[in-house]
Amino acid sequence: MSLNSDPDCIFCKIVAGGIPCHQLYEDDLVLAFLDVGPLSEGHALVIPKSHAVELADADQQAVERCAAVAKQLGPVIVEQTGAAGWNLLQNNGSAAGQEVGHVHFHIIPRRAGDGLGYRWNAGAIDHDDAGQLATKIASSVNP
Amino acid sequence: MSLNSDPDCIFCKIVAGGIPCHQLYEDDLVLAFLDVGPLSEGHALVIPKSHAVELADADQQAVERCAAVAKQLGPVIVEQTGAAGWNLLQNNGSAAGQEVGHVHFHIIPRRAGDGLGYRWNAGAIDHDDAGQLATKIASSVNP
Repeated sequence: MSLNSDPDCIFCKIVAGGIPCHQLYEDDLVLAFLDVGPLSEGHALVIPKSHAVELADADQQAVERCAAVAKQLGPVIVEQTGAAGWNLLQNNGSAAGQEVGHVHFHIIPRRAGDGLGYRWNAGAIDHDDAGQLATKIASSVNP
Repeated sequence: MSLNSDPDCIFCKIVAGGIPCHQLYEDDLVLAFLDVGPLSEGHALVIPKSHAVELADADQQAVERCAAVAKQLGPVIVEQTGAAGWNLLQNNGSAAGQEVGHVHFHIIPRRAGDGLGYRWNAGAIDHDDAGQLATKIASSVNP
């Protein structure tokens, strides 16, 4: 597969070797490295090498590989940093907190009382509305 | 593949059909449905059908499939709910906010000013420490 590359993208520059990184893993489709603005020790990023802004636009095989790499890398990072757990986070769009326009999966090691995590303010589902929404979504998704 | 199932697990009960859900997608490895405690309209869960508590313990093919399904489902949910973006979130361990002990990927639709998102309090990396940590992690991860 040929890789898409955006000359203005910082992650494409890292992939190309023009900007150094603390590399954790590399294969033909995926690169993983430590985040230079970590939320906690060991905060890492797993990215498809080929440029795509959001997950929906990324190569499917590379997305699957990112998930497999995160599955392998997460517990290693937890073990090496003495953390208690970890979050896998991937943001799509500025409204969702995406700051670099190249798909990236955050691996964020967690400890009890660290003040991190997702803001959780759950509501109750309206089952009538949810049923209608689920029907619309399901009919738009191809198995 | 035979599915692992935990008789006390609420997600295994949903997979088995013993508890109903607002289903969005199903195949041999993966089920997706609306979260009954949504953070925003369209908040969905993508789960491997086979029981595993954390991502590290889940079947790799099912994890890859979850990522592929999320990639497809996320933008459909955004479109159907009129959201502006979305987060993909997967928590491992109670210290990381995991509340149900069966691997699940949250798809959380986002709008500007919705008050959701990950708490972000980034520090600066110490490059000496990071270099040493990266070497230890990289040597523990098999390509």
